[in-house]
Amino acid sequence: MTDAMTENPSDLIASDRVEGTAVYNREGERLGHISNFMVDKLSGQVRYAVLSFGGILGLGQDHYPLPWSMLNYETDKGGYVVDLSRETLDSAPKHLPGERPDYTDAYGRSVFQYYGLIYPW
Amino acid sequence: MTDAMTENPSDLIASDRVEGTAVYNREGERLGHISNFMVDKLSGQVRYAVLSFGGILGLGQDHYPLPWSMLNYETDKGGYVVDLSRETLDSAPKHLPGERPDYTDAYGRSVFQYYGLIYPW
Repeated sequence: MTDAMTENPSDLIASDRVEGTAVYNREGERLGHISNFMVDKLSGQVRYAVLSFGGILGLGQDHYPLPWSMLNYETDKGGYVVDLSRETLDSAPKHLPGERPDYTDAYGRSVFQYYGLIYPW
Repeated sequence: MTDAMTENPSDLIASDRVEGTAVYNREGERLGHISNFMVDKLSGQVRYAVLSFGGILGLGQDHYPLPWSMLNYETDKGGYVVDLSRETLDSAPKHLPGERPDYTDAYGRSVFQYYGLIYPW
């Protein structure tokens, strides 16, 4: 996945290249990887990406919904770099893989608010 | 993948549930499956899905960019149903998996025009 956003000369990224890409914070700590992302069925707008973190062999991993705009791909890192400390992530909205919450507007709004971002819908 | 759009009560779909989902036309013919879809890195807007069709064991498959709005999930079919004849698909913009075109606006526009849709960007 080191070339996730570099082989395509345009401004588009393939969905399966986002999935699995590592996520680091600005301190260089590896926070996890993007397991998948959620798309509005009607408009085709990505609502947020899901950061998967922790657990062993996929068991017990926590899933953190992250606003798409937080993801910045850095070629030399071979992954996304987000402005997010471990401490901020500790208290962030999360769920277990088998406990996917209702992705309502209210839930989305609470996620964006947690990260200090405006919910654009 | 029969429950691709039904287990989630909201209007969102997970990226990895779109990938691999079968695509049929209104005549019930199986046209192929969605291999992945292309997302605008900056805005998070899906530009189009990629329909994979033909070939044996993945070899020689053609990839057809399809506007996201053409995809309508039908639960009883367990897949997307698109208003698209085999004949229309025969002449549609396509490429081999290893020959991904430059996803420029001009290219996207030509794809949308082929299907009689307005290019919204």
